[in-house]
Amino acid sequence: MEDLQARRHTLAHILALALQTTYGAKVQFGTGPATDTGFYYDVHFDGLDFKIDDLPQLQVEMEKIIQQDLEVKHFTKPIAEALVWVDDAGQPFKAELIRDLAAAGEEEVSFYQIGDFIDLCKGPHIKRTGEIPLGSFALTKIGGAYWRADESREQMTRITGLAFATAEKLADYQAMLNEADKRDHRKLGRELDLFTFSPLVGAGLPLFTPRGAVLRETLGNYSLSLRAAEGFDKVWTPHITKLDLYKKSGHFAKFGDELFMVRSQVNGEEFAMKPMNCPHHAQIYASRPRSYRELPVRYMECTTDYRDEKTGELGGLSRVRSLTQDDSHIFCRQSQIKAEIAKLIGIITELYSTVGMGKLRARLSYRDDSDAYLGDPALWEMSQAQIKDAAIENKLDYFEAAGEAAFYGPKIDFMAEDAIGREHQVATVQLDFVQPARFELEFTNEEGKKEQPVMIHHATLGSIERFLSVFIEHTAGRFPFWCAPEQVRVITVNEAAADYVNQIAEILRGLTLEQPLRHNDLRFSTDSAKDNLSKKIKRAVELKIPAIIVVGSRDAEAGQVVVRTYDTEQTIKLDKLADFLKGIK
Amino acid sequence: MEDLQARRHTLAHILALALQTTYGAKVQFGTGPATDTGFYYDVHFDGLDFKIDDLPQLQVEMEKIIQQDLEVKHFTKPIAEALVWVDDAGQPFKAELIRDLAAAGEEEVSFYQIGDFIDLCKGPHIKRTGEIPLGSFALTKIGGAYWRADESREQMTRITGLAFATAEKLADYQAMLNEADKRDHRKLGRELDLFTFSPLVGAGLPLFTPRGAVLRETLGNYSLSLRAAEGFDKVWTPHITKLDLYKKSGHFAKFGDELFMVRSQVNGEEFAMKPMNCPHHAQIYASRPRSYRELPVRYMECTTDYRDEKTGELGGLSRVRSLTQDDSHIFCRQSQIKAEIAKLIGIITELYSTVGMGKLRARLSYRDDSDAYLGDPALWEMSQAQIKDAAIENKLDYFEAAGEAAFYGPKIDFMAEDAIGREHQVATVQLDFVQPARFELEFTNEEGKKEQPVMIHHATLGSIERFLSVFIEHTAGRFPFWCAPEQVRVITVNEAAADYVNQIAEILRGLTLEQPLRHNDLRFSTDSAKDNLSKKIKRAVELKIPAIIVVGSRDAEAGQVVVRTYDTEQTIKLDKLADFLKGIK
Repeated sequence: MEDLQARRHTLAHILALALQTTYGAKVQFGTGPATDTGFYYDVHFDGLDFKIDDLPQLQVEMEKIIQQDLEVKHFTKPIAEALVWVDDAGQPFKAELIRDLAAAGEEEVSFYQIGDFIDLCKGPHIKRTGEIPLGSFALTKIGGAYWRADESREQMTRITGLAFATAEKLADYQAMLNEADKRDHRKLGRELDLFTFSPLVGAGLPLFTPRGAVLRETLGNYSLSLRAAEGFDKVWTPHITKLDLYKKSGHFAKFGDELFMVRSQVNGEEFAMKPMNCPHHAQIYASRPRSYRELPVRYMECTTDYRDEKTGELGGLSRVRSLTQDDSHIFCRQSQIKAEIAKLIGIITELYSTVGMGKLRARLSYRDDSDAYLGDPALWEMSQAQIKDAAIENKLDYFEAAGEAAFYGPKIDFMAEDAIGREHQVATVQLDFVQPARFELEFTNEEGKKEQPVMIHHATLGSIERFLSVFIEHTAGRFPFWCAPEQVRVITVNEAAADYVNQIAEILRGLTLEQPLRHNDLRFSTDSAKDNLSKKIKRAVELKIPAIIVVGSRDAEAGQVVVRTYDTEQTIKLDKLADFLKGIK
Repeated sequence: MEDLQARRHTLAHILALALQTTYGAKVQFGTGPATDTGFYYDVHFDGLDFKIDDLPQLQVEMEKIIQQDLEVKHFTKPIAEALVWVDDAGQPFKAELIRDLAAAGEEEVSFYQIGDFIDLCKGPHIKRTGEIPLGSFALTKIGGAYWRADESREQMTRITGLAFATAEKLADYQAMLNEADKRDHRKLGRELDLFTFSPLVGAGLPLFTPRGAVLRETLGNYSLSLRAAEGFDKVWTPHITKLDLYKKSGHFAKFGDELFMVRSQVNGEEFAMKPMNCPHHAQIYASRPRSYRELPVRYMECTTDYRDEKTGELGGLSRVRSLTQDDSHIFCRQSQIKAEIAKLIGIITELYSTVGMGKLRARLSYRDDSDAYLGDPALWEMSQAQIKDAAIENKLDYFEAAGEAAFYGPKIDFMAEDAIGREHQVATVQLDFVQPARFELEFTNEEGKKEQPVMIHHATLGSIERFLSVFIEHTAGRFPFWCAPEQVRVITVNEAAADYVNQIAEILRGLTLEQPLRHNDLRFSTDSAKDNLSKKIKRAVELKIPAIIVVGSRDAEAGQVVVRTYDTEQTIKLDKLADFLKGIK
């Protein structure tokens, strides 16, 4: 992995050399790092209109440099010499960086050189350009970026490339990108009529059409049903609050400038839209005295939070301003932490396995020795041990990461892999030692004394909108039968079978699935339009309806139906239809 | 009824005479009208600390005036004479009113006189004070009010009385008030642990605890289930929107200063919290082309709207800032109006009958001849006729009211009576000819031409919070079995019956009610605490749990349970328990 990153980094320099060879003094270099999938270089073109069409020729130049098997030379210069060098090099961006290093008191500067191209760089790099297999990299796009990510500075051109260990791996990755493109949830969202945006309502504020509303509700209900079975109670809290709540919780000091502010025109009162639900739930806990006997108290709520994301960062459902969380909070004793976390691990494992993303990795995020963490260190140690025990006993595929905890407590972050191999951060379980103290939460213990509970935050799906963006692409819109917006469509060949269609509809109307979500009444429609049959079938296939039943008079006579699912087409006796549908995964 | 209002008005004057007799020049008179339940007089006391304890003596004075059977004299004065009169009378508030009449060009002023008390007044009044039965009125409270409802003017004392046709009717009304007091939903909300308020979150923003959350969800789901059966689809829309939406809909011009304004700190963008959902739903309708074949399109959503109510007007759930509506919108052809309204009438009738408030009155609110209404008059006429037909065919107890329509269309307003005889405005059905035009909504008709649909707004419960305030008082917290937060509690006499309790719990866990809400899993708990039995029963009774099962070892031996409902106590064989519970209303 480290080798691959060095190779990617060297490719950035090779790109720079190719640019210098091709464009000479017309190109000035910013910075060119490795990325998780390749490399890029930010450059500034002087009087040159660089286009995406210029990439192939540039790639050819890079391949030549590789074939020349040039050495990648490393040397250092004392800062004084480096400053002289920049004055000669005609590289204003590099000059700025070196002057900053000088100002910061650095005494020596590290350079790498390939052929004629010398670059200020810390490395590491590979030894020779010839180590890079031809075909293992590809220049893919150009875009814009501000120098030093500062909107008031120069506009640079970012040239980006992919690079993998072998040509085959590059091809795999490009195939995955291609597949991801086909599955793009924004495209499928339109095609399957799941959600829409209105310029009158605003960016990042999706409106869910009937099909999308079914999907989000069914998934949300399933998520909550798993927790209901473990003793969680639903609560309901409003979407706005006085700022006092966040001042007391401490969120205002940390995140105050990320809140959507709400103003009363009647009396000028200031509110905020809730970006999370924990302080609200803490108020419900605090609404009456609590005894140790009723602990753990477990609240859950599927509710919409609002976060003030930049418009430029909004796209489809991946990042929205209205994010609905299947959120929950446990208030428990310190001794109950492990058992509660074990419950949550069970719920997370079951849900992601049900949606076909059962390959989970978990990061146990602990504190480190810095003073960035609040709360009693002994409590941290004790609860980190409980987290680890729960992870082992529940057979999680986990790794530990010191210094990754939140300031208020340790946590578990879950990563799930989708159908095309992408890993997504999904559920989290977070302990919180700080809010109970700030809100002075308490319960009466066996000795009649007041004790402070621990809070455990958990959302299984997380933001339902973001989960949907992943789930739509994971399934390519071929949703599992139980959560498909329209599960069955009955299409008539002609009017002759009308009575028989009624008979089928009667069976479908009485059908309720009980797995994995209980009481899930079948969602179906009949298409008896006088359109031509293949047009009707095409319509149903385009909507990726998991069971399509085409009914003609011959089926009526035979007392059977032909059911077309995603993968098969089967002839089923009418009295077996209900069981057949219940069995579809 | 008119006579009673005249009598109430006369009582206000009698109160004034009693005040003048008792306090002489220390009292100055504002205005004193009749109300729906009696009368009041706003007066200003000069150097006098009037207290509620002074009311009984004042009432005795009024009774004396009645017993004297004084004549109520009416006379008029030319405005010039009236102005002279006020200069002499030492009544600055009356003087102000008469000067305003003069300024408005009035030529004559009407007065009424009882004994020594002369009042500027348009009447009507009864002829003699003796017509009022003793015991049919009572002074009940004092409060504050600003002169002419202007906060910058004098603070007046409002003395309020009740008055009914007979002493018996007054007693009935006072008994009802007394009963309403006992049923006060704010008190019951605390006692039954249904909702809470937090000063950190703010006034008018209730937080629903687990029991209250069950209640609101169960009622909301029931309401939506009735519409789902009639072809309504759920949608989901965010709680905020750019102002553009309300500018286009026309709401901004009308209600812009009643909106909660939302501001992005990231880029200063202005949003509003949605106070209603119609424009959002219109955006979903407009998100793709529509054909006449798919009309009516019916959307519904249980979602929270925000209205910027004055803090002083907030109390319990009757008036909140976060109001959750079981809202819906139909987009249909003009020819479909009657059939759609008939569906809605059926839904409303069924829901209010289910919750025990089946005595409904309906006001058909039409336009009048003024120019306050938008849209084609022919369309108004045609749809008002459809509304009336629907009302008649569905046997509504209705009355018609010209001039009560909204500016955008005619409507039906439903009034329901609660258990103690109070009438509440509940559901509405509103036609809307204006939003479809403003949003340029359309569908393609049989001829391939564009046509504009009509919108029908409807909420069955209305605001769920407000409905709950009515429903809690209507039921006095003894909720119908199907929607009670905790339906069954099993209480153990001692540990001996533990196995048997498990057996009972097994039955309860498998129990799902199907009426009136389908798939309504039984909500129960077991109380096996080692507390003393009567304490455990008291706890369950205080929570008004509709079925309380006390289990001892004798029950285990006999294979039976004793179920205490609101009204009865019955011994049931264990194998009949499920059926018995399903049968509880």
